[in-house]
Amino acid sequence: MHRYALTIEYDGSPFHGWQVQNNITTVQGVIFEAIKKFDVNCKNFIGAGRTDAGVHAIGQVAHVDLATKHDCETVRRAINYYLSKYPISILSASTVDEEFHARFSAKKRHYTYKIFSRKTDLTFERTQYWHVRHILNIANMEFAANYLIGKHDFSTFRSSICQASSPVKTIDTINIQSEKIRDGIVYQLNFSARSFLHHQVRSIVGCLEKVGCGKWAPEKTQEILLSKDRSKCAALAPSKGLYLTKIEY
Amino acid sequence: MHRYALTIEYDGSPFHGWQVQNNITTVQGVIFEAIKKFDVNCKNFIGAGRTDAGVHAIGQVAHVDLATKHDCETVRRAINYYLSKYPISILSASTVDEEFHARFSAKKRHYTYKIFSRKTDLTFERTQYWHVRHILNIANMEFAANYLIGKHDFSTFRSSICQASSPVKTIDTINIQSEKIRDGIVYQLNFSARSFLHHQVRSIVGCLEKVGCGKWAPEKTQEILLSKDRSKCAALAPSKGLYLTKIEY
Repeated sequence: MHRYALTIEYDGSPFHGWQVQNNITTVQGVIFEAIKKFDVNCKNFIGAGRTDAGVHAIGQVAHVDLATKHDCETVRRAINYYLSKYPISILSASTVDEEFHARFSAKKRHYTYKIFSRKTDLTFERTQYWHVRHILNIANMEFAANYLIGKHDFSTFRSSICQASSPVKTIDTINIQSEKIRDGIVYQLNFSARSFLHHQVRSIVGCLEKVGCGKWAPEKTQEILLSKDRSKCAALAPSKGLYLTKIEY
Repeated sequence: MHRYALTIEYDGSPFHGWQVQNNITTVQGVIFEAIKKFDVNCKNFIGAGRTDAGVHAIGQVAHVDLATKHDCETVRRAINYYLSKYPISILSASTVDEEFHARFSAKKRHYTYKIFSRKTDLTFERTQYWHVRHILNIANMEFAANYLIGKHDFSTFRSSICQASSPVKTIDTINIQSEKIRDGIVYQLNFSARSFLHHQVRSIVGCLEKVGCGKWAPEKTQEILLSKDRSKCAALAPSKGLYLTKIEY
């Protein structure tokens, strides 16, 4: 078998998440079907991050084993050809050795969460941003985020169905950028860590938004982190604002 | 009656254009229905520009006469409430006197055409840009565009069903900007004129793209302008890249 790594971009809105499931349209499912049309004996199509329903990617990485050797550009184009009806693009393909594993070899994962603040409903970006109607205080959000950077027990920010063996994770960075777009402001919250718990980013964003709009004091983030109590967390930020942006190996 | 001017943003992709038509979903049609739910006796809902199917707007202006006087923010919110299932937002509402006419009072119209150049198919932006796979030469496009600025007979760049009484129009500006987005380049071609012929902007963009990718010499634009021969024009650029951005009064 010949192992290839693929860098993948997708609009997650029409899919029931990454992970293949019977009789449900998933990103992994439709890409694997496309690869099979090109190489019927392909195996082991595995992604670095299992994004939830509605979550997007501009830098998902996956590996796959093909029965026949092809040049990388042929692999990329052939898979894209069979994916043309879906909002998925294979951005690049490269040969990797058989020890490479998209999920287990990953050293760092980057996610970005996008919030669009403006008075009126969104038009073009309805499935691409969390829409809020108030301006956010970035300084307060950064102050709150600083309590979460580093190694912590993130039980508060963890889905009840999270399968990780431990709630302890290390967040390397959280930074926040803002930009004026038309009559609104777009906030991008950038996260990086070796790995994340299930719903960890969306749980944190739900809390940072409460800080940003003034409903929570920044210090409350530390208080709920230390409580290790899931019920203290703000409501989960919607999936449509979340992007898997980059995997480092 | 009380006349209001509305500034309107819409994603044109699900609509059969602006202009109301029987049994067809149009932007004007659904907005007028929404206004009627708020004020059953409203009349004369008229837009500044009749955008084609798939064409977008971030600054369309329309006027409407309401039977009852309301404050502007109430008008804006009420219409948006009834539009919530559509990708249309009333950005602002203001009172105007009865001589104001969204179409005939307009002094200048601004359109932007967006082209996304990258190797792979688009994902998030499929209905928002013209996707091309080659890089465009902006200097050559600007050189070609300069032949079109000013007052000319634009018969070459005019739809066969255009209803304007004369093919002579004055283009005030054409400028081109580019920006790197992810692994591609976005080109924005900005046009302004008092008014445009039907398909004028998309006809010009079709030709400028041929210049940008090297298939046409920049001088060919002047040659076909002077020919006043529609058959000399390049294929129309797709509607999905076109945005009505601003109307000046």
